[in-house]
Amino acid sequence: MNENRGSAVDIDLAYHRAWTGHDFELAMTYIAPTIVCLAPAGQLDGADAFRGFMGPFAQILTRSELIAAFGDAETAVLVYDTDTIPVKNAPAAEYLTVRDGLIVGMRIIFDRAPFDAARRAAAAG
Amino acid sequence: MNENRGSAVDIDLAYHRAWTGHDFELAMTYIAPTIVCLAPAGQLDGADAFRGFMGPFAQILTRSELIAAFGDAETAVLVYDTDTIPVKNAPAAEYLTVRDGLIVGMRIIFDRAPFDAARRAAAAG
Repeated sequence: MNENRGSAVDIDLAYHRAWTGHDFELAMTYIAPTIVCLAPAGQLDGADAFRGFMGPFAQILTRSELIAAFGDAETAVLVYDTDTIPVKNAPAAEYLTVRDGLIVGMRIIFDRAPFDAARRAAAAG
Repeated sequence: MNENRGSAVDIDLAYHRAWTGHDFELAMTYIAPTIVCLAPAGQLDGADAFRGFMGPFAQILTRSELIAAFGDAETAVLVYDTDTIPVKNAPAAEYLTVRDGLIVGMRIIFDRAPFDAARRAAAAG
């Protein structure tokens, strides 16, 4: 784990520790009402849309490992690995923008392919 | 673009500029012969395996935009967006480890789903 703390990283790590620690409501306190999240499936506008995306993912999380956290005053990047109920070893990266102590922008990158495959297998099963 | 230069970031940016600038052979000069790359499809051991993975991707690249570059002495994270011939807006993140001026470790994260969909669409003709 490599960690280079700045103010944006502090906020992002607090958010990260909350949702990976299964306190999603605490995690949401770091999310701006006006957050714009660019996710693999498209753009999510606002905290409610973000909650609908990240909440279900947080619920299927069984393990997480922070790999890297870097940032400056306003932006940060987190890289982490996860295990989830349907998919093991599902790493992700987040590029975050922070303003007034809240996450206002998030670009999240992960591979949907194994999740799609798990869904197809479950539907066929 | 947010850039926080360290020695690992310098090497990674040089590698990044080379392959996104369509000089893949120059890019390979930053890759250690013993590189271990964790890609979405699995682990690639050694520069030849890495070349077989990244070379074809570099060839279909039509646009790239560096979003973030952070690092410390030995590790770095790059986040960038790309357009490729089959898929537009295909962002990626790389967590890299550098030793003796060469990239010895790379975890690359991107979404295979749109590439899989493009391949299926092309096969369906």
